[in-house]
Amino acid sequence: MSKRIETDSMGEIEVDADHYWGAQTERSLHNFDIGRDTFVWGRPIIRSLGILKKAAAQANGELGELPEDVAALIVQAADEVISGELDAEFPLVVFQTGSGTQSNMNSNEVISNRAIEIAGGERGSKKPVHPNDHVNRGQSSNDTFPTAMHIAIVLELRERLYDSVAKLRDTLDAKAKEYADIVKVGRTHLQDATPITLGQQIGGWVAQIDHAMADVHHAEGSLHRLAIGGTAVGTGLNAHPKFGDLAAAKIAEQTGVEFTSAKNKFAALAAHDELVTLSATLRTLSGALMKMANDVRWLASGPRNGIGELLIPENEPGSSIMPGKVNPTQSEAMTMVCTRVFGNDATVGFAGTQGNFELNVFKPVMAHAVLESIRLISDACVSFNDHAAVGIEPNRERIEQNLSTNLMQVTALNPHIGYDKAAAIAKKAHKDGTSLREAALDLGYLTAEQFDEWVVPIDMTHS
Amino acid sequence: MSKRIETDSMGEIEVDADHYWGAQTERSLHNFDIGRDTFVWGRPIIRSLGILKKAAAQANGELGELPEDVAALIVQAADEVISGELDAEFPLVVFQTGSGTQSNMNSNEVISNRAIEIAGGERGSKKPVHPNDHVNRGQSSNDTFPTAMHIAIVLELRERLYDSVAKLRDTLDAKAKEYADIVKVGRTHLQDATPITLGQQIGGWVAQIDHAMADVHHAEGSLHRLAIGGTAVGTGLNAHPKFGDLAAAKIAEQTGVEFTSAKNKFAALAAHDELVTLSATLRTLSGALMKMANDVRWLASGPRNGIGELLIPENEPGSSIMPGKVNPTQSEAMTMVCTRVFGNDATVGFAGTQGNFELNVFKPVMAHAVLESIRLISDACVSFNDHAAVGIEPNRERIEQNLSTNLMQVTALNPHIGYDKAAAIAKKAHKDGTSLREAALDLGYLTAEQFDEWVVPIDMTHS
Amino acid sequence: MSKRIETDSMGEIEVDADHYWGAQTERSLHNFDIGRDTFVWGRPIIRSLGILKKAAAQANGELGELPEDVAALIVQAADEVISGELDAEFPLVVFQTGSGTQSNMNSNEVISNRAIEIAGGERGSKKPVHPNDHVNRGQSSNDTFPTAMHIAIVLELRERLYDSVAKLRDTLDAKAKEYADIVKVGRTHLQDATPITLGQQIGGWVAQIDHAMADVHHAEGSLHRLAIGGTAVGTGLNAHPKFGDLAAAKIAEQTGVEFTSAKNKFAALAAHDELVTLSATLRTLSGALMKMANDVRWLASGPRNGIGELLIPENEPGSSIMPGKVNPTQSEAMTMVCTRVFGNDATVGFAGTQGNFELNVFKPVMAHAVLESIRLISDACVSFNDHAAVGIEPNRERIEQNLSTNLMQVTALNPHIGYDKAAAIAKKAHKDGTSLREAALDLGYLTAEQFDEWVVPIDMTHS
Amino acid sequence: MSKRIETDSMGEIEVDADHYWGAQTERSLHNFDIGRDTFVWGRPIIRSLGILKKAAAQANGELGELPEDVAALIVQAADEVISGELDAEFPLVVFQTGSGTQSNMNSNEVISNRAIEIAGGERGSKKPVHPNDHVNRGQSSNDTFPTAMHIAIVLELRERLYDSVAKLRDTLDAKAKEYADIVKVGRTHLQDATPITLGQQIGGWVAQIDHAMADVHHAEGSLHRLAIGGTAVGTGLNAHPKFGDLAAAKIAEQTGVEFTSAKNKFAALAAHDELVTLSATLRTLSGALMKMANDVRWLASGPRNGIGELLIPENEPGSSIMPGKVNPTQSEAMTMVCTRVFGNDATVGFAGTQGNFELNVFKPVMAHAVLESIRLISDACVSFNDHAAVGIEPNRERIEQNLSTNLMQVTALNPHIGYDKAAAIAKKAHKDGTSLREAALDLGYLTAEQFDEWVVPIDMTHS
Repeated sequence: MSKRIETDSMGEIEVDADHYWGAQTERSLHNFDIGRDTFVWGRPIIRSLGILKKAAAQANGELGELPEDVAALIVQAADEVISGELDAEFPLVVFQTGSGTQSNMNSNEVISNRAIEIAGGERGSKKPVHPNDHVNRGQSSNDTFPTAMHIAIVLELRERLYDSVAKLRDTLDAKAKEYADIVKVGRTHLQDATPITLGQQIGGWVAQIDHAMADVHHAEGSLHRLAIGGTAVGTGLNAHPKFGDLAAAKIAEQTGVEFTSAKNKFAALAAHDELVTLSATLRTLSGALMKMANDVRWLASGPRNGIGELLIPENEPGSSIMPGKVNPTQSEAMTMVCTRVFGNDATVGFAGTQGNFELNVFKPVMAHAVLESIRLISDACVSFNDHAAVGIEPNRERIEQNLSTNLMQVTALNPHIGYDKAAAIAKKAHKDGTSLREAALDLGYLTAEQFDEWVVPIDMTHS
Repeated sequence: MSKRIETDSMGEIEVDADHYWGAQTERSLHNFDIGRDTFVWGRPIIRSLGILKKAAAQANGELGELPEDVAALIVQAADEVISGELDAEFPLVVFQTGSGTQSNMNSNEVISNRAIEIAGGERGSKKPVHPNDHVNRGQSSNDTFPTAMHIAIVLELRERLYDSVAKLRDTLDAKAKEYADIVKVGRTHLQDATPITLGQQIGGWVAQIDHAMADVHHAEGSLHRLAIGGTAVGTGLNAHPKFGDLAAAKIAEQTGVEFTSAKNKFAALAAHDELVTLSATLRTLSGALMKMANDVRWLASGPRNGIGELLIPENEPGSSIMPGKVNPTQSEAMTMVCTRVFGNDATVGFAGTQGNFELNVFKPVMAHAVLESIRLISDACVSFNDHAAVGIEPNRERIEQNLSTNLMQVTALNPHIGYDKAAAIAKKAHKDGTSLREAALDLGYLTAEQFDEWVVPIDMTHS
Repeated sequence: MSKRIETDSMGEIEVDADHYWGAQTERSLHNFDIGRDTFVWGRPIIRSLGILKKAAAQANGELGELPEDVAALIVQAADEVISGELDAEFPLVVFQTGSGTQSNMNSNEVISNRAIEIAGGERGSKKPVHPNDHVNRGQSSNDTFPTAMHIAIVLELRERLYDSVAKLRDTLDAKAKEYADIVKVGRTHLQDATPITLGQQIGGWVAQIDHAMADVHHAEGSLHRLAIGGTAVGTGLNAHPKFGDLAAAKIAEQTGVEFTSAKNKFAALAAHDELVTLSATLRTLSGALMKMANDVRWLASGPRNGIGELLIPENEPGSSIMPGKVNPTQSEAMTMVCTRVFGNDATVGFAGTQGNFELNVFKPVMAHAVLESIRLISDACVSFNDHAAVGIEPNRERIEQNLSTNLMQVTALNPHIGYDKAAAIAKKAHKDGTSLREAALDLGYLTAEQFDEWVVPIDMTHS
Repeated sequence: MSKRIETDSMGEIEVDADHYWGAQTERSLHNFDIGRDTFVWGRPIIRSLGILKKAAAQANGELGELPEDVAALIVQAADEVISGELDAEFPLVVFQTGSGTQSNMNSNEVISNRAIEIAGGERGSKKPVHPNDHVNRGQSSNDTFPTAMHIAIVLELRERLYDSVAKLRDTLDAKAKEYADIVKVGRTHLQDATPITLGQQIGGWVAQIDHAMADVHHAEGSLHRLAIGGTAVGTGLNAHPKFGDLAAAKIAEQTGVEFTSAKNKFAALAAHDELVTLSATLRTLSGALMKMANDVRWLASGPRNGIGELLIPENEPGSSIMPGKVNPTQSEAMTMVCTRVFGNDATVGFAGTQGNFELNVFKPVMAHAVLESIRLISDACVSFNDHAAVGIEPNRERIEQNLSTNLMQVTALNPHIGYDKAAAIAKKAHKDGTSLREAALDLGYLTAEQFDEWVVPIDMTHS
């Protein structure tokens, strides 16, 4: 393969001639061969670096920090990064320098060389577009990389997570309404309890998702604070005084998100507490989804020797040895995703504590884990929705049969005969294997008419 | 010791005559001897059960669900629970039934017997105040215990955490302002970086705390939703239709907190996602405090062979073997607290996923862990404030000496001579062990006048 | 209260005259008021400090590092620490200096003053027994505290955990044998599967516990390595060259545990990886117990609308509102303990990474968390054993009824007619709501005689 | 693209004609589109499925459960799976059915169709080699998938982790020996402490790694227990009674690992505690590596305003804005890996608790997380070794300068003049900014000759 020489402050290094990246990207490729199969940065970070570099060039251009033609060249090359055309020029992995310097330089180098090429120059010449002096103008990895992290995460939330979760949430909400009148056994401590409607039960899942999403949305808000403008240590050295605000405004313009330059840049470089809290809200969300997925599979357990009150789609043969078996596989995928999100959150929380002085150098691993959680929850919600939730049906026969034998309807008698007598009725019925009605009449605590008036399952589903 | 007989739906059981508790508390004492030394419920939960039972009696009284005199007796006994007079009557531990039923019954029994006593009745007679039919009227452990959890946690936040954190935060904020003009070496990747003021550095810690506290406050808001009114499974069976709202209003009245009855009671019983997210914000807060405490001890490292830029109070001999040693012990206590808060959060997150159907039965362990985190962070902030933060002083001599040798001031030259030439200067000075100025002049990239004009540390602390 | 003056290298301080502790304990009381309600050190650490100080005095006496009479006085006072008589003299909390220096000095001071008293001297005079020069002879907190941690944990394992777990394990093992012939429905993915015996199912729980305990035992072995002899930084400065080995031998003698002086003292002070791994094995153990406790409650779910194949003891009324309800409360306590052990393990794992240079200063929080996990698992196993496991009974009627309707017996036909035809039979039976036998005959894939010969549940419980 | 029809018990489905996989793989592709970019199974699991299927065919052939020619065909096709030639035929992701059924069927289908092709048959015909009846003979996903998990993990440990860690460990060990005589300041609580040699310090890191690796090796041993022979629920239904042992022996033969069939198959299917404990030992290992990597970067901090006692290789420009900056990037990659391993371990621990009855359905996510941890630690060790550890050099000048000013050498005086006088000397020197010697002589506690005899740093590095 043909080679060219690239240089940086450490000297010369050979690079494949058909690539745009420069010396520092090449060095990182040599120095960090860690988890290469699965840890090369994907679209969200690459695109966000492009968005950022474009915005920075625009801002520097307007502020007179860059010649107009140089700014225009950078914008053009950055647009290609944004579009995805240059994804193959971003070969670096997550486990690199903890400030993301090498990925920031990767974007500087690719944009610089592509801009040079557009201008008819020679790759590696740094003329007319220098990776540091121009593309990185008024910037440091310490403020650009966390800025790109925030952009990437917010866009993944808005473009991926919100719709995916909403799809599932809305399906469940529709089911809740559809089954609002199906009265069934409630269960607490896994034991039979007073009646509930299937709609209420499903509505509880929806409420959990709604609450969790409110937390996610709130946490997203903190990510609107961008580090850009802080440069090396938060002071903004070498950036035009208006650069941070203007660059943030340009990013907001490109993305439609209310991004601003963070008021306190020192915290913005030295900590990523916004990610820690956001990750935690994804953990809460995954917990809500796990509860739902667990309820679905338990309610669908059986077909004959479980609870069996829900029917779920039969998507595939369940067993390689047990013929005819159908398993709640979408619930399993969802709950596995939840355990993974928990792990990612542990990573983010731990890494978030480890900043020192003016920098937290766990940026890449934090960004990666959050992005992975967003992706997995999103995909799992779509999968669960399409292959499970839309097809959930009540097993009405089983539901009614179960309800008819339930002893906890006795609770309706408390206000009439008191807890102690009601308990005696339930215990007698349980011991004798009879119905509550029989036991109640046997004990003589009330008349048949009273029983029939007071113990009406549907009336027990509201106060 | 004299005994009396108490009864519940399982029959009779002997109880110490001088205690107010009844049969179910006694059974729990026998059945759950787990971690008794340190896991008996403390003031926050006991008081909150009292607040709740008082509010419930008031609401039931107003709604005609309880005779006025019975309601009044319950209120009077509940007031004694609230005041702390009856704390010794709450002997149960955290690890009991997962709905907190036994602690709910503990409060029902104690209030019932104390109310009976006030009325001149006989303890254990359940007359004129029955623990279930009256004290627990319109309630279930499944809604009362999570209600008490929310009350306890919100009050601990408001009465303990907020002030404690604010105390430390304000001390740091004052230090940030006091030291706004002390220019010092910045550090990124633990390596010397461009200058920063000590005030900026401390201000970064303050910003982290402020951000974290904003998250805590937001998360507190979700705890204002109370489960009360949901009774056994969320349907509100046996509660007056207005009971939940009215009881919540009475709780709000007592506490001054904007508590309301949760819109979705099914989620309120089956999940405690509010606690999961709140716990996570405490985790974020503890991470911010860990960063600060770590910075303090590293900046104070030495006295001779570390960074030594900060001086911290000498509170105790540091070593049992090394005479004259002084250690950053408050930082150590604070960072240990942080690891504990992380552990508590892991407990809460895990437990929060494990609800089934209409109930999450990990309520006590979740409430306990959150309350412990609040207590530890609060105490640690006060301790750190009083014994460390207030006494932090800059070691001005060391700060200036360090700054004077710092090579990263070279960054100020980027806009004038470009990154590559600036790098050459820094590398030469590093290699030769000279000052930047010497190296710059040797290389002939700029004049002495230019150097002195461009490289001014204080000017590098802002954009 | 009467006061006396105690001194240390920082000067004088007043101490309650009726306490034995000295200046440094007193200072710590003032400086660390964090979580005092529940975080004062308990018996295991106090006793272990006593064991260690006794062993150190014996070793120093034999090596000529201490006069015989001084050594004897220390031994006598240390014996009182060991016995528990002086527990009230150890008022310090976990969250103190991260090396445990203050608790080490607490033991030095108490033993010194008590020894002085025995010798007829004056408390606080440091004569004839000096807390540092004599009681702490050849020691540093940096080696004594981790030594005491290891002693405390190993003794708690041996004196508390092993028997408690074994008690439950043996009960389950006996149940496994007792119910070896009860054939029941197996369940995978929560769905009906091929038959299993109840004994096999319970035996699986026993095997998990056995495996986990083997891990705990192995991890215990690493704690036999003691830091003693390392003094301040691992070099052993100021200790007699034979001190570490001899002190360890004396500790081994006192405790009956194979303690030795660690080969690498630098790691022994700077890291507590032994605790991290031990904590992890407790996590595994708690996970095994959680699986068991969950299976028990699910198998006991019902009574009418769950699986209902196990009967568990009715220990208390289950609900404050639902009369006659019985809940699997011991399972709930056990699984809550598991979530707490997971949290403690997260604390230990995190803290374990945070050592710097020659010391890890998260010693107290690590030791505390491990000791708490041991205590909770132990207590929970005894509780679960006494109040649940011993009383578990099969619900034979339900088990047989369930088994008789199970479709997965079809698997026995695979070797005879192939998976695809077997699947067709199961699917037909499921769809038609008939028995497998009916479906099989309808499809004509085998004769009635063949079916009856091939499909025999008990034969399906082994290969 | 050309299609063919494949069938399973649910009916027909179109598959790309040029692929070997069958109906169930195809269904899984449609049903589980979760994290496809990075969660498709890699070599370790695919190869292990191949090893397992080969061994199973050999065992079944020998036991007369499969015709010899069928067994031979399966072996031949399995060999191609093992070699990697058929990796493109394994398109499924981790988040699928929780038993790994679809990946087990993927291997059954690919091997079946490839074997059919070798035999001259028609893909999809299931003749002469049926995916269930032949390739999966005597097996269930419930025992094959965990068997493949164990094989994959053990081989990754043996072929990847052990050598990678040893490489780094041996480099450090050589450095420890090389620098055995360099005396330097010890540091505890980040504060100057008594002297230590650089060799001792590095030796502490080596000891931590050795201890951690001993734990990993021990935990590996538990993975030698294979689930194979348990089939659907652990009973071994449909497997020849000798199948489990013989298949395990065949696997041992292929791999050179001491695999055996697990004694208790019920635990082997229903729990993966072996993975939980193994993952925990990887956590301990990563913690040890984090401590080392942190020490390295702190000791190398500076170059002028940190500790600066170590020199590390300059691999790349450290900053995009600060010219000439060199950062400890390999330490950063290593510590980021550690936080990821912690997260993976949290996933594994959580998932490990969630088994129910006869099956844990979190198998894929657990296996994946463990494999990822192994891969990351291995890669990071090689990277750290090659790009950092081999190039670590002491900065002798700085080390000596630091040592010469260190006050903690005063500790050597304890045995001669007592702790209290020694403390006075240190405090005076600290206050006056003088040397210990000056302060000691000023105070008159000893003579100059005594000082010079007693205070010799090299003598303080051993007992």
